[in-house]
Amino acid sequence: MAGLHIRSVLVTGSNRGIGLELIKRFIGKPNPPEVIFATCRDPDGARAQELKNLASKHPNVMILQLEATDPGSIKAAAKKAEAHLGGSGLNLLINNAGVMPPSTLESATSEDMLNVYKINVVGPLLVTQAFLPLLKKAAQGSNQKGMSCSKAAIVNISTVLGSIEKTPESFFFVPVVSYRCSKAALNMLTKCQSMGYKDAGILCTALHPGWVQTELGNFQSNVQADLTVDESVNGLMKVMCNLSEKHHGILVTWEGNTLPW
Amino acid sequence: MAGLHIRSVLVTGSNRGIGLELIKRFIGKPNPPEVIFATCRDPDGARAQELKNLASKHPNVMILQLEATDPGSIKAAAKKAEAHLGGSGLNLLINNAGVMPPSTLESATSEDMLNVYKINVVGPLLVTQAFLPLLKKAAQGSNQKGMSCSKAAIVNISTVLGSIEKTPESFFFVPVVSYRCSKAALNMLTKCQSMGYKDAGILCTALHPGWVQTELGNFQSNVQADLTVDESVNGLMKVMCNLSEKHHGILVTWEGNTLPW
Repeated sequence: MAGLHIRSVLVTGSNRGIGLELIKRFIGKPNPPEVIFATCRDPDGARAQELKNLASKHPNVMILQLEATDPGSIKAAAKKAEAHLGGSGLNLLINNAGVMPPSTLESATSEDMLNVYKINVVGPLLVTQAFLPLLKKAAQGSNQKGMSCSKAAIVNISTVLGSIEKTPESFFFVPVVSYRCSKAALNMLTKCQSMGYKDAGILCTALHPGWVQTELGNFQSNVQADLTVDESVNGLMKVMCNLSEKHHGILVTWEGNTLPW
Repeated sequence: MAGLHIRSVLVTGSNRGIGLELIKRFIGKPNPPEVIFATCRDPDGARAQELKNLASKHPNVMILQLEATDPGSIKAAAKKAEAHLGGSGLNLLINNAGVMPPSTLESATSEDMLNVYKINVVGPLLVTQAFLPLLKKAAQGSNQKGMSCSKAAIVNISTVLGSIEKTPESFFFVPVVSYRCSKAALNMLTKCQSMGYKDAGILCTALHPGWVQTELGNFQSNVQADLTVDESVNGLMKVMCNLSEKHHGILVTWEGNTLPW
């Protein structure tokens, strides 16, 4: 990713798992972004300590409180980000925050379905709405041709479990009906965003990070996640480096392969 | 559909549009179902008058109050249906109730997204959970081989607008982002149901009724629905007549064609 210069990036849900590892990788790049917005719900909580330690050592990391289900919190974060950028735009928005509670056809409830949808779909919608002016500014201010993450991009962290076509391969091993439904909807949202933001020059892509050993990926004892966070984020960083208009409005794996809807 | 004998059917959202027309067609079959459950939110309201007139003339039509977002209302309806069936199962459940408010990437709100998801996705999930024992009973009591609507089936009324693949064809003409996301999720739910209920012998299929001239289909002055309710339901009835295990877990149009996810 050395060849790609992202001046500013924002990652939601960045206090743990894939989000935290993404922040570390952006920090560690040979040409790191000038501004790395790391958002989480509770920056003062114990679960954000590692992120806070990182930010204290790296002045280009700015932690923002952002609760992706709370429009007020999102707008406040966007306002702070705008002020901090001082007239520049935001190159890359990574909608990473998400939840995956156990949920079967039998056990799924209205509360479960709505809560997961709110975090996994409504969150990315609202966050994108709030940061869209900054993404547009980045696209307008760029003299790069085509689309890329260093110009202006929205990356929605999705999953193969949101692929309707691929569902038979995993249905009985990973009983997460509310999550599957939400991620199919997130894939649709990504496609809609790719249509709506194409003329603005903003790349919109959904990424499948693999089945990763995080808190979110490991809730079940009967399923062994097959990737470390390291391996997954290695792949994601490489893939983001290579994203172009070819990847606009599609679902791509951490290995760079296209998945069917 | 004369050759297919459905002993019992339930249609949600049956007081108007496609739902009401489906009830009329089942009544008018040469071999009509012995029991036609017509559900709607407010059977005593002015908008249910036509349905009530029908029920008063056709003793095989039983109106049930059912609010698809209210678990208590759904359970009460299932209990009444079970009592009315007197030991028989339910052959065909048609999850038809749905909403399609205007919604763009800019205008979509958390309330809009959650309300549409609740009605269009959580509703069919909960209704199916409640009526599953009756569907299983119908499947178990049948000596038919394979899958069909006359044995035991769940039909979810979906739409081509829920096809992620097909979104570019209609995105700018039909600005219904919350609806599109909900229907992609409903398609995923249909696939999950097809996996979970396969061994029970229950056919699960999503149907696209076409772009129909109903209240739901006509909210926009700039888009002309291209089918009458009559034409659409003609097609849907024919398609349901021919549904078999080949159609398990897929999205089929009113003309019988398979749509991509």
